[in-house]
Amino acid sequence: MNRREFVAGSLAAAALLQAREAASSQSAASPAAQANGVRILVFDTFGTVVDWRGSVIAEGEKLGKAKGLNVDWAAFADAWRGGYGPSMNLVRSGKLPWTKLDALHRMVLDQLIEKFQVNGLSEEEKKHLNYVWHRLKPWPDSVQGLTRLKKKFVIAPLSNGNVSLLTNMAKQAGLPWDAILSTEIVKHYKPDRETYLMAPEFWDVEPSAVMMVAAHAGDLDAAKKLGLKTAFVYRPLEFGPARQPSKPADGSYDFMARDFRELASQLGT
Amino acid sequence: MNRREFVAGSLAAAALLQAREAASSQSAASPAAQANGVRILVFDTFGTVVDWRGSVIAEGEKLGKAKGLNVDWAAFADAWRGGYGPSMNLVRSGKLPWTKLDALHRMVLDQLIEKFQVNGLSEEEKKHLNYVWHRLKPWPDSVQGLTRLKKKFVIAPLSNGNVSLLTNMAKQAGLPWDAILSTEIVKHYKPDRETYLMAPEFWDVEPSAVMMVAAHAGDLDAAKKLGLKTAFVYRPLEFGPARQPSKPADGSYDFMARDFRELASQLGT
Repeated sequence: MNRREFVAGSLAAAALLQAREAASSQSAASPAAQANGVRILVFDTFGTVVDWRGSVIAEGEKLGKAKGLNVDWAAFADAWRGGYGPSMNLVRSGKLPWTKLDALHRMVLDQLIEKFQVNGLSEEEKKHLNYVWHRLKPWPDSVQGLTRLKKKFVIAPLSNGNVSLLTNMAKQAGLPWDAILSTEIVKHYKPDRETYLMAPEFWDVEPSAVMMVAAHAGDLDAAKKLGLKTAFVYRPLEFGPARQPSKPADGSYDFMARDFRELASQLGT
Repeated sequence: MNRREFVAGSLAAAALLQAREAASSQSAASPAAQANGVRILVFDTFGTVVDWRGSVIAEGEKLGKAKGLNVDWAAFADAWRGGYGPSMNLVRSGKLPWTKLDALHRMVLDQLIEKFQVNGLSEEEKKHLNYVWHRLKPWPDSVQGLTRLKKKFVIAPLSNGNVSLLTNMAKQAGLPWDAILSTEIVKHYKPDRETYLMAPEFWDVEPSAVMMVAAHAGDLDAAKKLGLKTAFVYRPLEFGPARQPSKPADGSYDFMARDFRELASQLGT
């Protein structure tokens, strides 16, 4: 019996049982394991890592100037983001089959182009504008904070942005992710449970070895319910200077920080 | 009617049609688009980017010395890798449900521990040994070549290694991937078609905008059949000095290079 036959033959017999045992017994053994500790940080992206509102306004104003348009780009950005939840809920409720965020963004954009009278755009220009979400700019502390956190933890987005959106964004903004975890991978949008359980399942660890980092209480509450650790980062300018978001009470989450640098210090990196 | 009602209401009506149109019309418009050109490079990993054989032998010899074992680690490494194809085929043929590569590696390892009489290992030590595949060392040109290629292309592994394996490997070896594309994401092993079509679908591009880079003809042939571009990189030492792999005839693939640095030069980076 040669080596290949040996391996294939004996595998077939005990395979199922062994696979189950191996999967369950490897939980504690990953390379960077820290007993009962957090090993993986996953980040909400829009608003938490990048400034979607400021970025959309800046590109809109540039486009408006080039095209001679008179558009309230702040209202336009808010309306575009306003269509985000409702359009994802069409998917979450089953009214739409799985549809990636780029396509949902485009659906909303086509309506806003009419509503805000953004006239005279070619199809190429509309496509380019839709991809502004691939070009969002990071908050001033994001790259430095993530770079520090990366030394101690696996870091990844956990975002409703699709894989190409998050990858292109990271490339342009210099976000040093170890992996791109998009909800597109499990074809569910947050706050569906499948999204938060992605990292624990990929790494064969308990949910408590993964910490969700976000500027939004709803995101953190959903993660917490499934056993993930949570870190709140306050982003007072996410919705513009006129609409300061409320801040959860101290102690609402495992960690609470003013920005990623402070979070890095709290986590000893 | 407020903004939220406006968006949700009008979305529901034309949603399905728009989603389809948006998905198909965005093909050419991604940020780094090059007309008819390759934008994304996906890489086989074991053997192409990292030296699995040398890495497993080196860790085995260290373990053997510490434990006073007399094991032929080269034969051990070859047998472990020899179990790779047969164990994946149990999944591909449906004899096993989806099982990630870590668990397949462990199934084979448990048999080889008996066969090669690797005695006296605790469960923790077995787990650590199984994760040697997370710690494989890159070929000498890999990091430098990938760093050059990353300037012009989106670069990602396209490997049967699971997400955590590839992420941990990249972190330890300094592989500068833009994203981690593991076949675990689509729950199919190469050469199933779903694996090669992952990048075109994530990026909404034709398969010809994606190039598969590998040291193995079978991998490239499967990718080529689905319309991907192909680059062969010769890795004469993958199977050790005594077993030099055959080299495909010139012109068999779109690009053929001796290492990643040469590939980077051929691709103008």
